[in-house]
Amino acid sequence: MGVLYASTEMKLVNGEAGYLLEDVPHLSDYIPHLPTYPNPLQDNPAYSVVRQYFVHFDDTVPQKIVVHKDSPRGVHFRRAGPRQKVYFKSDDVHACIVTCGGLCPGLNTVIREIVCGLYHMYGTSKVLGIDGGYRGFYCKNTISLTPKIVNDIHKRGGTILGTSRGGHDTTKIVDSIEDRGINQVYIIGGDGTQKGAAAIYQEIRNRGLKVAVAGIPKTIDNDIPVIDKSFGFDTAVEEAQRAINAAHAEAESVENGIGLVKLMGRYSGFIAMYATLASRDVDCCLIPESPFYLEGKGGLFEFIDKRLKENGHMVIVIAEGAGQDLLNESLQSIDEQDASGNKLLKDVGLWISQMIKAHFAKENKLSITLKYIDPTYMIRAIPSNASDNVYCTLLAQSAVHGAMAGYTGFTVGLVNTRQTYIPFNRIIEKQNKVVITDRMWARLLSSTNQPSFMSPKVINEVDKEQKPSTQL
Amino acid sequence: MGVLYASTEMKLVNGEAGYLLEDVPHLSDYIPHLPTYPNPLQDNPAYSVVRQYFVHFDDTVPQKIVVHKDSPRGVHFRRAGPRQKVYFKSDDVHACIVTCGGLCPGLNTVIREIVCGLYHMYGTSKVLGIDGGYRGFYCKNTISLTPKIVNDIHKRGGTILGTSRGGHDTTKIVDSIEDRGINQVYIIGGDGTQKGAAAIYQEIRNRGLKVAVAGIPKTIDNDIPVIDKSFGFDTAVEEAQRAINAAHAEAESVENGIGLVKLMGRYSGFIAMYATLASRDVDCCLIPESPFYLEGKGGLFEFIDKRLKENGHMVIVIAEGAGQDLLNESLQSIDEQDASGNKLLKDVGLWISQMIKAHFAKENKLSITLKYIDPTYMIRAIPSNASDNVYCTLLAQSAVHGAMAGYTGFTVGLVNTRQTYIPFNRIIEKQNKVVITDRMWARLLSSTNQPSFMSPKVINEVDKEQKPSTQL
Amino acid sequence: MGVLYASTEMKLVNGEAGYLLEDVPHLSDYIPHLPTYPNPLQDNPAYSVVRQYFVHFDDTVPQKIVVHKDSPRGVHFRRAGPRQKVYFKSDDVHACIVTCGGLCPGLNTVIREIVCGLYHMYGTSKVLGIDGGYRGFYCKNTISLTPKIVNDIHKRGGTILGTSRGGHDTTKIVDSIEDRGINQVYIIGGDGTQKGAAAIYQEIRNRGLKVAVAGIPKTIDNDIPVIDKSFGFDTAVEEAQRAINAAHAEAESVENGIGLVKLMGRYSGFIAMYATLASRDVDCCLIPESPFYLEGKGGLFEFIDKRLKENGHMVIVIAEGAGQDLLNESLQSIDEQDASGNKLLKDVGLWISQMIKAHFAKENKLSITLKYIDPTYMIRAIPSNASDNVYCTLLAQSAVHGAMAGYTGFTVGLVNTRQTYIPFNRIIEKQNKVVITDRMWARLLSSTNQPSFMSPKVINEVDKEQKPSTQL
Amino acid sequence: MGVLYASTEMKLVNGEAGYLLEDVPHLSDYIPHLPTYPNPLQDNPAYSVVRQYFVHFDDTVPQKIVVHKDSPRGVHFRRAGPRQKVYFKSDDVHACIVTCGGLCPGLNTVIREIVCGLYHMYGTSKVLGIDGGYRGFYCKNTISLTPKIVNDIHKRGGTILGTSRGGHDTTKIVDSIEDRGINQVYIIGGDGTQKGAAAIYQEIRNRGLKVAVAGIPKTIDNDIPVIDKSFGFDTAVEEAQRAINAAHAEAESVENGIGLVKLMGRYSGFIAMYATLASRDVDCCLIPESPFYLEGKGGLFEFIDKRLKENGHMVIVIAEGAGQDLLNESLQSIDEQDASGNKLLKDVGLWISQMIKAHFAKENKLSITLKYIDPTYMIRAIPSNASDNVYCTLLAQSAVHGAMAGYTGFTVGLVNTRQTYIPFNRIIEKQNKVVITDRMWARLLSSTNQPSFMSPKVINEVDKEQKPSTQL
Repeated sequence: MGVLYASTEMKLVNGEAGYLLEDVPHLSDYIPHLPTYPNPLQDNPAYSVVRQYFVHFDDTVPQKIVVHKDSPRGVHFRRAGPRQKVYFKSDDVHACIVTCGGLCPGLNTVIREIVCGLYHMYGTSKVLGIDGGYRGFYCKNTISLTPKIVNDIHKRGGTILGTSRGGHDTTKIVDSIEDRGINQVYIIGGDGTQKGAAAIYQEIRNRGLKVAVAGIPKTIDNDIPVIDKSFGFDTAVEEAQRAINAAHAEAESVENGIGLVKLMGRYSGFIAMYATLASRDVDCCLIPESPFYLEGKGGLFEFIDKRLKENGHMVIVIAEGAGQDLLNESLQSIDEQDASGNKLLKDVGLWISQMIKAHFAKENKLSITLKYIDPTYMIRAIPSNASDNVYCTLLAQSAVHGAMAGYTGFTVGLVNTRQTYIPFNRIIEKQNKVVITDRMWARLLSSTNQPSFMSPKVINEVDKEQKPSTQL
Repeated sequence: MGVLYASTEMKLVNGEAGYLLEDVPHLSDYIPHLPTYPNPLQDNPAYSVVRQYFVHFDDTVPQKIVVHKDSPRGVHFRRAGPRQKVYFKSDDVHACIVTCGGLCPGLNTVIREIVCGLYHMYGTSKVLGIDGGYRGFYCKNTISLTPKIVNDIHKRGGTILGTSRGGHDTTKIVDSIEDRGINQVYIIGGDGTQKGAAAIYQEIRNRGLKVAVAGIPKTIDNDIPVIDKSFGFDTAVEEAQRAINAAHAEAESVENGIGLVKLMGRYSGFIAMYATLASRDVDCCLIPESPFYLEGKGGLFEFIDKRLKENGHMVIVIAEGAGQDLLNESLQSIDEQDASGNKLLKDVGLWISQMIKAHFAKENKLSITLKYIDPTYMIRAIPSNASDNVYCTLLAQSAVHGAMAGYTGFTVGLVNTRQTYIPFNRIIEKQNKVVITDRMWARLLSSTNQPSFMSPKVINEVDKEQKPSTQL
Repeated sequence: MGVLYASTEMKLVNGEAGYLLEDVPHLSDYIPHLPTYPNPLQDNPAYSVVRQYFVHFDDTVPQKIVVHKDSPRGVHFRRAGPRQKVYFKSDDVHACIVTCGGLCPGLNTVIREIVCGLYHMYGTSKVLGIDGGYRGFYCKNTISLTPKIVNDIHKRGGTILGTSRGGHDTTKIVDSIEDRGINQVYIIGGDGTQKGAAAIYQEIRNRGLKVAVAGIPKTIDNDIPVIDKSFGFDTAVEEAQRAINAAHAEAESVENGIGLVKLMGRYSGFIAMYATLASRDVDCCLIPESPFYLEGKGGLFEFIDKRLKENGHMVIVIAEGAGQDLLNESLQSIDEQDASGNKLLKDVGLWISQMIKAHFAKENKLSITLKYIDPTYMIRAIPSNASDNVYCTLLAQSAVHGAMAGYTGFTVGLVNTRQTYIPFNRIIEKQNKVVITDRMWARLLSSTNQPSFMSPKVINEVDKEQKPSTQL
Repeated sequence: MGVLYASTEMKLVNGEAGYLLEDVPHLSDYIPHLPTYPNPLQDNPAYSVVRQYFVHFDDTVPQKIVVHKDSPRGVHFRRAGPRQKVYFKSDDVHACIVTCGGLCPGLNTVIREIVCGLYHMYGTSKVLGIDGGYRGFYCKNTISLTPKIVNDIHKRGGTILGTSRGGHDTTKIVDSIEDRGINQVYIIGGDGTQKGAAAIYQEIRNRGLKVAVAGIPKTIDNDIPVIDKSFGFDTAVEEAQRAINAAHAEAESVENGIGLVKLMGRYSGFIAMYATLASRDVDCCLIPESPFYLEGKGGLFEFIDKRLKENGHMVIVIAEGAGQDLLNESLQSIDEQDASGNKLLKDVGLWISQMIKAHFAKENKLSITLKYIDPTYMIRAIPSNASDNVYCTLLAQSAVHGAMAGYTGFTVGLVNTRQTYIPFNRIIEKQNKVVITDRMWARLLSSTNQPSFMSPKVINEVDKEQKPSTQL
């Protein structure tokens, strides 16, 4: 009886001084007597110089590293990297890669490096690309991937495999995996995709298949918890500077000019926050995590009025998910018939532009000029920068090392700058959010000098919900 | 009796073989006995090596240069450049600069070079910046401009003087010019602004003031006639490539993906046309000059359907002024109540996005994914590239040379790569448009392989209106 | 008797008022009774909207366009573009493309557009790429070129065909052309390459072959005469700004900092001149056309000393061919044994860096810090910008139209912004140089405020040699 | 007797399970009875929303975080950030900032944020800039720094304060600090500079002055130990891609083309290693830490020969400090007279170019074309990218919080993504180097597929010296 615990439960290991390892599943957890093989890397001339190349079995990385001298040691994750023994013969490996959800800089680098890692590090030669996201498993042809085919793709934006949203049908997907004889599945996508990956892993386990499932978390919004940051995030923040610079030039060149930039972030304002911190030209940053209101004392309009009177111009950055409550309220008050316009106004950038213009169009108000910039697709679709390229490479290699070592049901992720394997449920149980009672948001407020737009009561409520867990 | 012809009339000089010079006005046309002074440039060490530095009085440049061996020589313009004699003493010069209308890459370079030209070439020391466009003449303080202040401004987008639309009040402006003792007025702006400049010149002439009025044509759309191209245009076409590349990456990464990019061009599709030609990733380019229709045989929807079935994705570039007739028609059919949405939909990019999505949402149609990108402000607000920097420098210097030489009521412009002085009325009488019966548009059609979207009848009509005058 | 004049002579046509057409050869000049065919473009739907699409047989473009009302009309060139009749059946066309000499932004765009032009405009389907320059004709395999293969190459620097210097062997090349049955030869390269092309054309003519030879002039230095500018030049000037900006930042950050940038230009200083004009941060620009000396009154060292004392830092731009006489003199004085160092010092940038450092290292001199930047290969190897992309497209299409129309022994080139066909000998007989007695150089001197570094005697000599022919 | 331990000794705190805190000095260590004040941040509206804003006194960050469940906890550093109590009244603060050594992207951002942090967070108003590095303390005027003056400087490369090497004279500097009444000293520079800072701190302590000394480590080479990475490093790796791309395009375009890029890294090959990993176009990466040889079996020439025969071209990246032993040996064999050439050849890029050319120029060798690119100053002198901008901001703020809280003799640094205060001696005692027996270098070897260029004996030696301490 190989399975000692229900598969949806966490695989936990306790140690001294409050040490806790949240381990990831392994093929041997549910398939007994699996043979192992020496890692082919040990014969790779590239590795001949490297002593202690293989990761020690006991290596783990703590999640919380701001500690006191007597703190409990807390949660740890298994360190990623190559193992002495692998659970697949090179010739037997039949891998597939799928990309799901929206575009993000670096997708092609991850694809490239999984392919090159499998070929060059482990000597495998069967890697399939699934076309157009999850549904490609069962309604499309696959694409054969070789190092030659993927050689230059990291210099292009988008994903050569194509992508789509939804299309997840666990049974059909696992049927397809089984039918095609695939035994390593690499799934690149956001939290919805990783939930799907968890279900695929569970079904594979239920069927008792020797198939490793590895997730590579993709989210340009950086809204996946536990990990330091998601790939493509750096590139996105960099590219967002162009839009902010343009908004600044537009605003500065007219009297009472307002430059408004919408950035990505449906539930998390990380891109908006970091882009604001990096730029220094932003006067106000609005994110989903920090409620705000428009009218009256302490509201957005008052602040705009004040800043324009002081400086003559201002730049506002708004995350796409900011102010959703206000927006919904406001749209309900418009005639329900108004389908097309209403739909457009669900874009918070267009909506808030209209609201600001309408407010200042009233009698006795400042005559303003507002320019609205939405660089979303210009940011998502660019190739990754050098820093993200290196990061994507390490993530892809960690995923390959993990699958080869027989781990499954895991996500790779950077935890405190170390590559680790993280159980799916830690990644999908909640979203990473900007903690507005934490220091980074305080830095932002201090940089923009914007008000908190919150009443003390709201602050208390927020405070209860959000613990400053990021420690940054 | 200095004035031999009414001032609004053209100042024409005829020569042999059909030669015609459309000359620009001169202060001496309406002020008799003006003294002249030697050009201070002749003492400038920088010019000591240059023989024949001063432009010959009779130098002119032909407008039409595709000729047959027996063609008449046609219209010519006066060549720009420094003259042996100037009509202002350096110490007496009191210049002002104003920028009007929307942003355009290169505005700051033009400002910088007028200031530096006046200071360094002609030894003047009084240059004022008018704040915020025409209305700044009478309701704002001026800004004192020196080479030191403008030293680095060409590396920034926007205009350090500020700008605005409208605000033209000829009498108040000329009053202000007279009151402040200004005697050289440099006006940077589009066709509306140049019309204003013409009125200012006329009023100055009517009052008999010794004030030179020089226009520098600014239009990111390249819609000013006669001149080769407007400054900032190159930079705009370059920057537009980013949006097209992003649209292409988005479109390629999903099934039936459409990337839609709106580019500037209210009445002229030059940016859209050149950006399309430069990119090679565009499948369809829609401009104001070329009418199109959506439904039915030969319409846009049919073409989209066809291209998606062939390639799986496509990129559409639309100029902001394209399809205005369709848009107006379409908006009239929507409930008049729907103010806000209607307003938004006047953005042709949002409107056509909705129309395409609505069309393909119908039964039995392809399931498409459309991503809309509007990079307008990200293009307008960037600094000019090297090529535009050099061009802006030459324009500014030509304007300064012209005003110093006593010319007035003129616009500077590049005609067949030569700097010339062009009478205002040639610039403002009509707009430069893409001639869709001309070769450049044919090249575009050949590059995108898109249909003409026109019935033969329409073609004939277009043909009558538009003569292939650009000869490119 | 088809040939009325010796083939090396110019083909001249005279007209009234001093009109002179310097025509290009045509296959029918030496092959009688060639059949013609209707141009397939007339059936191309893309052209159906374009009236007067075909270029009129008599269209020509003047070289000199700064004119007086009674000037003679002067030299003209034949306008490029599609003709009503072509001299090749689409199925019979067998074209080849070769790239020679150093890299230049835009090479791949020209290749792409020749291929696409032949396929899409003229329906041909046999285009060969010659591998690695002229020698590829006789010692390498050819590369089959299709629109699919060249689809994305314009986004890459370099040339997909490979290139080399030299390797020209007229007989072997024409043998190879004859043996392979090639009947259209497109040759992309600088003046040496075009001389080779002229020899190939002559040999083909001597053998009486029906093979059209078209040159596309390539020179990043812009040193080819007659034409407005060479492709890639704009991109090069743009990219040079990075180096100048870096030199400026380095120089500004230390006491008596000198930033020295070497730019391309063995015989012509165009890149250095335009990069200087575009930047405004350059204090001194040294080019091959303008002699200078180092020591003593009016020399470079004196100027450096002066500028450092005034501003505390300075930026010098030097073209690679500047100061060759000084350099040779200086190297001769070093021990002849010193082979390796001597070789390195033939790099004028390294040499002048050493000279400046050595000068200021002397007693009682300023303590300077010099940073030398050589961005040559970083400039040459980048993809062309949007403006050059469009330009390359038009050049390629003009070449294809010309060859299809039976013209041969011609170079395509932009003359006063119009596409023309120019006889080889006009392109190769001399080099385009910066005319230092002309206005553009005066503008540069005025911008940098540098001395002329010339004695009046030298100026007079220069003056005699160089006539201000560019009229810019 | 305020001092309980010799000041050069470490200030150590032990805890359970092997916990060790390497603490930083504090003013109260040697000045008794210092008064404290409430942190003005607590009244800042920006902070009103942030609970637990102040860093807990006991917060520390572990250096080693790859742990086993029973590992000792090891060395920790004090967490950076604002403290409840400060040791300076806002009005009493008199700060100065100095930048030393070579340029690095981000210098201006650090300067900006120290100034803005002091003004906006702590309400101080006296900040001086020291002109031109250490020697500016005693032989130059200071520059008054305000938020307005530094507002846009982060968009420029270089340092507005100027910089220099050397010039350190502890006594004169501390005299100047004392004379001017400065009580907070911010020192931005590399390991030499930090050594100087340690001496300044020691002298200040010896004199018993209430002056806080804070170091901000600057090294584009990333050669400072303990910290995750140095600011500007990301920007440098990104910019290096341009040079590598150009080298690749040059190499690909000719037969047996070699593109050689020299990157920064006198003692550490981090930039070369990361730039190689990010690019994927590099065939060979040579760094100071990994010895290599040229001739014979397993040498560089053999590898070049092999790679050229396989691929036809290759790209080599060499760090400036690589192969110094070979270079010195080689230069000794050249005639000692040869001063100038010899000096030039001390540039490893020029030297190895010559060696490779000379080798392949021999009989029976491949005919190669080598292009050498040295982008050093083009990389150093650019503004920092968004990621480095944020990083510089946090470093600057941490330094300000630390000095205000009375800490002194510390360096700020990112340790495992957390801001910490690190004692000087940990930073200056040794250099951070690429550990070639560690995993990151193995990844590089695997990516380039280059040989190790080492004999097993050398590997063993290297192995003993270098422990894989980075754990990456």
